[in-house]
Amino acid sequence: MASAWLLPEHIADVLPSQARRIEELRRDLLDMARTYGCELVMPPMLEHLDSLLSGTGQALDLMTFKLVDQLSGRSLGLRADTTPQVARIDAHLLNREGVTRLCYCGPVLHTRAEGLTATREPLQFGVEIYGHAGLEADLEVQELALDALHRAGLTQITLDLGDARLVRGVLGDHRLDEDRLAVLVQAMGAKDAGGVASFEGELPAAVIDGLQTLLGLYGDIELLAQARERLPRHPLITAALDDLDWLVRHLRATHPELRIGLDLADLPGYAYYSGVRFALYAQGCSDAVLRGGRYDEVGAVFGRRRPAVGFSLDLKTLVGLIPATQLRAAVRAPWGVAPDLRAAVRRLREQGETVVCVLPGHEHENDEFECDRELVNTSGQWVLRAL
Amino acid sequence: MASAWLLPEHIADVLPSQARRIEELRRDLLDMARTYGCELVMPPMLEHLDSLLSGTGQALDLMTFKLVDQLSGRSLGLRADTTPQVARIDAHLLNREGVTRLCYCGPVLHTRAEGLTATREPLQFGVEIYGHAGLEADLEVQELALDALHRAGLTQITLDLGDARLVRGVLGDHRLDEDRLAVLVQAMGAKDAGGVASFEGELPAAVIDGLQTLLGLYGDIELLAQARERLPRHPLITAALDDLDWLVRHLRATHPELRIGLDLADLPGYAYYSGVRFALYAQGCSDAVLRGGRYDEVGAVFGRRRPAVGFSLDLKTLVGLIPATQLRAAVRAPWGVAPDLRAAVRRLREQGETVVCVLPGHEHENDEFECDRELVNTSGQWVLRAL
Repeated sequence: MASAWLLPEHIADVLPSQARRIEELRRDLLDMARTYGCELVMPPMLEHLDSLLSGTGQALDLMTFKLVDQLSGRSLGLRADTTPQVARIDAHLLNREGVTRLCYCGPVLHTRAEGLTATREPLQFGVEIYGHAGLEADLEVQELALDALHRAGLTQITLDLGDARLVRGVLGDHRLDEDRLAVLVQAMGAKDAGGVASFEGELPAAVIDGLQTLLGLYGDIELLAQARERLPRHPLITAALDDLDWLVRHLRATHPELRIGLDLADLPGYAYYSGVRFALYAQGCSDAVLRGGRYDEVGAVFGRRRPAVGFSLDLKTLVGLIPATQLRAAVRAPWGVAPDLRAAVRRLREQGETVVCVLPGHEHENDEFECDRELVNTSGQWVLRAL
Repeated sequence: MASAWLLPEHIADVLPSQARRIEELRRDLLDMARTYGCELVMPPMLEHLDSLLSGTGQALDLMTFKLVDQLSGRSLGLRADTTPQVARIDAHLLNREGVTRLCYCGPVLHTRAEGLTATREPLQFGVEIYGHAGLEADLEVQELALDALHRAGLTQITLDLGDARLVRGVLGDHRLDEDRLAVLVQAMGAKDAGGVASFEGELPAAVIDGLQTLLGLYGDIELLAQARERLPRHPLITAALDDLDWLVRHLRATHPELRIGLDLADLPGYAYYSGVRFALYAQGCSDAVLRGGRYDEVGAVFGRRRPAVGFSLDLKTLVGLIPATQLRAAVRAPWGVAPDLRAAVRRLREQGETVVCVLPGHEHENDEFECDRELVNTSGQWVLRAL
């Protein structure tokens, strides 16, 4: 049992100083989402596997821990992403006709880490808007995402935009099976022209040309005009470029300081997104802090094809990017059962002060909390004295 | 896929009205624990099984979902209780000499529900004090527990006290194997005199007499005097009765309104507790809302035998016992990109107001939030108007 205290790889305890900052951030973000009209939901950690993985693609399947329910004998999954659960709640439990804004915050678990330093237990915070197919909902979600990072204290944020419909439009009527599509998506995301070229024979030359064109379309927003000229004509492509154009114009008006980039070949969550997708990057970070987009199809497997747009982020990652906050200093008090002392301690706690009662025999220990004041009895009165 | 939205038995979504109350309660309880000097920790959902179940007994083992880590091939467990994890953190990560007060709040998962209406996914909130063997820490934890339920809005609470050392003292040097001990503990808890009598042959008649005596010792605090007379002499029994007496006297002084009961045969978590254990009951509830006690041995398997005392409760259960709180009414605003409208909306949100922007085409829907005011443009100014 010498190693009983060792944790599995990519799994870690969150210790007090970090936990406090995560908790503060969690509250800030949930409160901010509430000011946009988002209602909090708490889906369970465990669900039937077929429900968790409906229509979400192979990538999420591989990330999901599976186990057997001894009550029913059925396969359960530990959620690796909360979005399909929230779609289920919108479709079945709330079952509203109109716009529904929902938010959530809780752990998700991954069988494999998404990077060398990534956790397998992100604390996922997210927001979803259901029931509005128009770009106004995309814009609201993007502004809420920007607000979330500003609220957390991040500055110099870059917004990266793309659209799942561009590749679909280039592919047109040509279908690839799930495995080959995954290879293509991977090659597109890695800007691997050779990988794309290897689809020769499987896809017509014109389609491969279109895909190679997409590969070159990343950079600043001036690319949109080029994209219109160089990409093939297809209703999905026209719609995607029109939507990106609308969003860029509005975001520039409301967030003039925001750096906006385009990456028309990047397809994270391709199985999932049905329209514009976005990612936010903090300065100096190569991985996105936050990802979101439109995924109108996610609720379809639950019997309700509702427009949906949202984002999620990992609070454990985010908290590592922001400056530490100062813990409010505490009050040290003697231990005792005298009613006047107890009353004085209680009063301070009710005012929100941290009062550490020194247990007998521990008078000479350092406080866990930085105590800057002490509760002392002066002429029969309990008063605070600076330490 | 018609049933894709059905959840496993004893697993449920938490919908907005309930989720909001749970979140409020979560914050209240964590803030209150902080005022006692408790630092927040966030142990992971998943750990190596041998670490999660070290020294915690068979009952927790049966409650724990197991799975295999594909990174290491080792068995992992989903935590069914957070206390052993917090003991590990105290023993190894913090590794302090002095008193350490810790708190936590997060989901735990159970293979089986603990009752007909119980959830298999409690949201566990708890507090632990390490490093002080004296009763002052027991008292502090009990007062914190009482404060937690008062803060939640519960009144007419009953505190039930017992001590794991009483049965140990009656058993003396007589050992039972783990399975038979579990049967005995079960019989004691159920006040099943026949079940206890069935140990004839396995245990001496004097021990069985002592156990039968314990069975009758439940009721009000006057029982302590009876217990001293009727129970056999043993240092563990004397220590337990002295400690219960001390705690009762101090609790009566600080909480004169509290109803205190004794149940000297009840042994929930017998494998776990090493001294005084307590439970809090709300009026009209047959199950305890909160359980705690002293469990000095839990950290031993991590190589540090530290005194420990604490409690935990399930926020999902607690929230069902308290009155609903009113949601602060929201403001309805038109959707638009005009800078003055955006600025007005932003200002209201920064003041903490919920502002629901009505997306185009949804003007005649009911709001999810009860809106009692509307943002309207009057002579070029955005102002609030009552609805």
